[in-house]
Amino acid sequence: MLPRFFLPSSDPTGRGALPDDEATHLTRVLRLGVGAAIEVFDGRGGIWTAEVAEVSRHHAAVQLGAPVPAPAEPRVRLHLVVAALKGDKLDDVVRDAAMVGVHNIQVVVTQRSEVSLAALRRSGRADRWRRIAVASLKQCGRAVLPTVHAPVTLTQWAETAPTGLRLVMCEPAAGAGRRISEVPREDEVTLLVGPEGGWTPDELAMLSGMGGVAVQCGGLTLRADAAPLVGVSALCEGWQVW
Amino acid sequence: MLPRFFLPSSDPTGRGALPDDEATHLTRVLRLGVGAAIEVFDGRGGIWTAEVAEVSRHHAAVQLGAPVPAPAEPRVRLHLVVAALKGDKLDDVVRDAAMVGVHNIQVVVTQRSEVSLAALRRSGRADRWRRIAVASLKQCGRAVLPTVHAPVTLTQWAETAPTGLRLVMCEPAAGAGRRISEVPREDEVTLLVGPEGGWTPDELAMLSGMGGVAVQCGGLTLRADAAPLVGVSALCEGWQVW
Repeated sequence: MLPRFFLPSSDPTGRGALPDDEATHLTRVLRLGVGAAIEVFDGRGGIWTAEVAEVSRHHAAVQLGAPVPAPAEPRVRLHLVVAALKGDKLDDVVRDAAMVGVHNIQVVVTQRSEVSLAALRRSGRADRWRRIAVASLKQCGRAVLPTVHAPVTLTQWAETAPTGLRLVMCEPAAGAGRRISEVPREDEVTLLVGPEGGWTPDELAMLSGMGGVAVQCGGLTLRADAAPLVGVSALCEGWQVW
Repeated sequence: MLPRFFLPSSDPTGRGALPDDEATHLTRVLRLGVGAAIEVFDGRGGIWTAEVAEVSRHHAAVQLGAPVPAPAEPRVRLHLVVAALKGDKLDDVVRDAAMVGVHNIQVVVTQRSEVSLAALRRSGRADRWRRIAVASLKQCGRAVLPTVHAPVTLTQWAETAPTGLRLVMCEPAAGAGRRISEVPREDEVTLLVGPEGGWTPDELAMLSGMGGVAVQCGGLTLRADAAPLVGVSALCEGWQVW
């Protein structure tokens, strides 16, 4: 497999400069030179073979070649709303979500999140997650970069949340939920996953009031950082969308 | 939720001494004293409320109380055969597999595994994975401890492997596989997951010769350490066994 790079835009002749992180990866990590064969993706579904056209210490320009067929996206638009978790755990969540076809990733601070919105913003987490999403696409071969939104509180999310089907992953302790494949499939779905301590009763009531459907993946308490991957995998297989 | 401990055996009066690791967790980490209410599981499906009966520096004995209903196990027996991966990546694989209901975990050294059988054995990895499986059950509430076998080569596994349905997770680059839910459900299934570089053509031919069915979860290249969780989740939802 050719090394892959993210090239968000190119000029009409098919030439473009890699973003800084990508140029560094090409020149400093992989040490590729002019003429090296690579593959680039634009994050919007386009993939091309390409050739390194120009390199300097922190800069790399590439020339697009032929388009490459892109792997199919899931046949439903998947929005993931995931509670802020402790430490770096969301790094893995974002990486995995990008890998299994999630379109939008929204981190929300919930009542039981052990990290504040201010701390997330101060540490520039959203930018970090965007870089992780790019890295994940380079690995998994996906052509569509998920949008990683700036973190908000769950309440803020609820005020502007798009309508449509919402599946709320619940711990077994919170009462019985439906199996995801028992819920009729729609073209667009938001999957909500709580923090380490789960949703509070208030939050569950609010989400239920918004039409949220409680769902479960088995009767065990899933680790908060593994639950999104379990939920999306179950959804994609249960609804036969991958 | 009460703190949970692994108590593999107790005497006919319902009294038992915790294994060393568990006693340390009770006395040194949680600092529980005589009379503290806890929950114990025997790893074979039994869960009880219990009370700390005796503690000393490295020892803790407990007295069983009433049995507690155990969460349902998946309605198929799941065997996971997973290729040895670099570094500590299998730690997460084992932790996740225990959490989603796998019954047997067999690590195999494949042609593209970047770690040798000798290195795995020398470092006592299997014991480490068994401790991780116990820790995972304490967190997820499961009552049945998966068996973690000592690592072998894929060829050694093949020589003594139980018969029955085998699903071989394949990367998209290896050709088309079936969706798991398209494969008729059986009461027992072995899911095989390859290493970072995937299966070799020889290995795929051998597994296919053993009746292995190539399956896929979407068209993207899953990270080797995430693929088992994706596969088991897809299987449990697709076959409606959780």
